[in-house]
Amino acid sequence: MRIALDAFGSDARPEPELGALELALAAGIPIDLVGDHSRLRDLLQLRNLSESGRDLRLIHASEQISMDESPARAVKAKPDASLNVAIRQLAEGEVEAVVSAGNSGAILAAALFGLGRIDGVDRPAILTRFPHFDGTTVVLDVGANVECRPLNLVQFAVLGAVFATLEHGLVRPRVAVLSNGSEPGKGTALTRMTAKLLAAHPSESFEFIGYVEPGDLFSGVCDVAVTDGWTGNLVLKAAEGALAVWPRLLGSHPDFRGSRTSVAMLAEQLDPDAHGGAPLIGVDGTVIICHGAASSQALYNAIALARRSATRGLADAVRQAIATHRPLFDAARRP
Amino acid sequence: MRIALDAFGSDARPEPELGALELALAAGIPIDLVGDHSRLRDLLQLRNLSESGRDLRLIHASEQISMDESPARAVKAKPDASLNVAIRQLAEGEVEAVVSAGNSGAILAAALFGLGRIDGVDRPAILTRFPHFDGTTVVLDVGANVECRPLNLVQFAVLGAVFATLEHGLVRPRVAVLSNGSEPGKGTALTRMTAKLLAAHPSESFEFIGYVEPGDLFSGVCDVAVTDGWTGNLVLKAAEGALAVWPRLLGSHPDFRGSRTSVAMLAEQLDPDAHGGAPLIGVDGTVIICHGAASSQALYNAIALARRSATRGLADAVRQAIATHRPLFDAARRP
Repeated sequence: MRIALDAFGSDARPEPELGALELALAAGIPIDLVGDHSRLRDLLQLRNLSESGRDLRLIHASEQISMDESPARAVKAKPDASLNVAIRQLAEGEVEAVVSAGNSGAILAAALFGLGRIDGVDRPAILTRFPHFDGTTVVLDVGANVECRPLNLVQFAVLGAVFATLEHGLVRPRVAVLSNGSEPGKGTALTRMTAKLLAAHPSESFEFIGYVEPGDLFSGVCDVAVTDGWTGNLVLKAAEGALAVWPRLLGSHPDFRGSRTSVAMLAEQLDPDAHGGAPLIGVDGTVIICHGAASSQALYNAIALARRSATRGLADAVRQAIATHRPLFDAARRP
Repeated sequence: MRIALDAFGSDARPEPELGALELALAAGIPIDLVGDHSRLRDLLQLRNLSESGRDLRLIHASEQISMDESPARAVKAKPDASLNVAIRQLAEGEVEAVVSAGNSGAILAAALFGLGRIDGVDRPAILTRFPHFDGTTVVLDVGANVECRPLNLVQFAVLGAVFATLEHGLVRPRVAVLSNGSEPGKGTALTRMTAKLLAAHPSESFEFIGYVEPGDLFSGVCDVAVTDGWTGNLVLKAAEGALAVWPRLLGSHPDFRGSRTSVAMLAEQLDPDAHGGAPLIGVDGTVIICHGAASSQALYNAIALARRSATRGLADAVRQAIATHRPLFDAARRP
């Protein structure tokens, strides 16, 4: 059960990735580290690490994709970019999953190009989790698809429920549509049609509970919330921005000077990104996206999530759920 | 300089409104309290208050609009609702501004119906403010218009800049378009066209700085951010939900047991709604919307904001700015 780690994804690459590698090796997770071979070999030497064949393999990739490149163009123009090579390792069955902290648009493009979608999936989604006082809420899509149609959102409901069941052990997760109010008349044409379809086609694998508002993502009212990638991305970034205000304010407040460690621990506990990155769900393989600013610990958490997802058979579970819910998707495809 | 206070707006009406009334009277702000006369008279007596003619007038309104009514229908079906009567007081020049914690859709409908729009304004917007470590960011629209076109967003830029100048004393506020990334290629057709129009028509009264992401609303990067009412509403609710996670978590954490008062003060300081409510900007008169769960202090802050806005001539400043920016709006109207 090997994981491919894109060594040149994060903003501070490859240092955070090397730190994550050490954590993974210590936890007994075999890694294919993908990037410039000679550079990585030198850096590993400084950390008293070396390619072992079994636990750690270095997979050479001569190029890198940077954050400011056009994602689809860069993926096509640089077949030997570390991201592309990592995806190729997965496509060829050399590893069970890929973790990258690179440009999320590029990861999406590379995965679509190199792995393809699971049969029946119209659009893969980026899934994130809001950890909170009463548990964890799964939210998707948070950025893969700026524009969506009802078919996409009902598929996100199915995909999100599969993830909540596999990763959080929920038997029949409560699924909701993210909206600007809880009454059925609220929302947009997209959310109203999605809610209508989900209500008309009850699923055995999840319970549809209607609309939730963004505040409910922190309350435990639902286990999964679906939305288009524009709204999900802005809601995620607003939440991250708001969550980060508190530690700053507490850090400068005389009453909390002695509590910096506790505050930092709470901040990490609430950080959606620190909990294992964001799976790209719906592509034919396990791919986990991390934040460009991810720490070694966050990257390691993503590696651990990748391993759990692969062990538990996320892609196969998605394949099966997509097949089971065909009547719902057929209804969504009808004009 | 009188303010009309809808006594039957908030979820716990009229108690929070009566508390706000006491604060306003103590601060020397004359109030028209609008609602059921006999009921209000009895409740005022319990607080040792009475109608004085000058400081406090009771304005009878026999009906109320509730949160779960269809806004536009309720406003038309109940001409004697406290909200409608308060708006009428403003339309007839009896007061300078209206404050209500009622259904925001109903407040919008009542204001459009009773006051109309300022000449040249296509769609009024609900404006809110994100207070943060480095200042305050004005955001609009946060809920009046679920669907918007570029004309609306460029008008929101002008309206928001007027507010930032009048209320925050900024000479040439920095205005941005809310997006999912800072690069010009990001966003939607709506945000890209809005950015293009604002860049092509520089304004003397504000500086257009391009895209910001929701995290920037807490960083002081811009003074005003414009977006459609769907995105703005969800971003606001996500931020409010995330901000409220911290006090809960700190309250249950042993290291912070002794700091409850400080935590509560910081929470109030960060609460967008506590800072004076949300002006409905672009209608022909000063109308401030408060949260249904607003406290007496939050309602009083809205009354104080209403008085400042009226004193400083918000509606006239908007009228003038709308006239000055006509070329920008004409360009936005072109197909």
